[in-house]
Amino acid sequence: MEKDSAHTNYLSEAIALAVANVQNSGGPFGAVVVTADGQVFHGVNRVTADNDPSAHAEVMAIRNACAALETFDLTGARLYTSCEPCPMCLATSLWARLAGVYFAADRHDAADGGFDDAVFYDYFNTPPEDRSLPVRQVPMETRTAPFEQWASTLDRVDY
Amino acid sequence: MEKDSAHTNYLSEAIALAVANVQNSGGPFGAVVVTADGQVFHGVNRVTADNDPSAHAEVMAIRNACAALETFDLTGARLYTSCEPCPMCLATSLWARLAGVYFAADRHDAADGGFDDAVFYDYFNTPPEDRSLPVRQVPMETRTAPFEQWASTLDRVDY
Repeated sequence: MEKDSAHTNYLSEAIALAVANVQNSGGPFGAVVVTADGQVFHGVNRVTADNDPSAHAEVMAIRNACAALETFDLTGARLYTSCEPCPMCLATSLWARLAGVYFAADRHDAADGGFDDAVFYDYFNTPPEDRSLPVRQVPMETRTAPFEQWASTLDRVDY
Repeated sequence: MEKDSAHTNYLSEAIALAVANVQNSGGPFGAVVVTADGQVFHGVNRVTADNDPSAHAEVMAIRNACAALETFDLTGARLYTSCEPCPMCLATSLWARLAGVYFAADRHDAADGGFDDAVFYDYFNTPPEDRSLPVRQVPMETRTAPFEQWASTLDRVDY
């Protein structure tokens, strides 16, 4: 019960961020990262405002949390977002080691609002050879040179 | 024939960026964006150096190209990357409207080098209810408020 109201409070915060962001030349999306120890970080969609296609609210909240905490690992943190996250945001959440994602509006609400992400969901449900964006390996003799450089570097930061 | 050597040249550039990045406290990954009119932009992995889990070489190359060109739309551009892109990078490439992605090392080379992304590929091949990162909708009465604010904003930048 207490936990459900916590979810609701953070989602209300994400929705309020989204509304305010529209009034600040941003897209209608907001997100909140809550760390395992309860610290709260905000993100809003700045794709068009910052000319950054990766600047979805969820990614921005993760970036902001990581920058403030000086880490690239948010193990145990939760993400609250005003709208169902796209595959880019889910994959970024995986890389950040998040523990869970909660959202308010879903992909159908978003499509009704003019944001149809179906092509993104469909992409990962389509066999690689039939995908809309061609991705192709080119034979390169030097292709493992970066990993060899990495292996010989003693002061590297593994992750 | 001319086109294949162009691919090879850009991939060599991406591999050289990756090697140099290891010597500059970065991960062993490099990428190059080539716009439809032939402009070239670089990116390298700065996840640990910048504390940004989204800072893969591919995403950085896209961000750098967009920032320099003052656009969030790279329609017709190609991405060359030293290693097979993960789902985050593929989804970012989709959002940037890239025309194609070419890579040198594949996911198996990466795993041999200590970078095993299998969990990321598996994630999108797993039914949502069985996925490692739980993603859940919470009922919120105000969930469409951001889209209503968007619809009533006349000077918005659609995308």
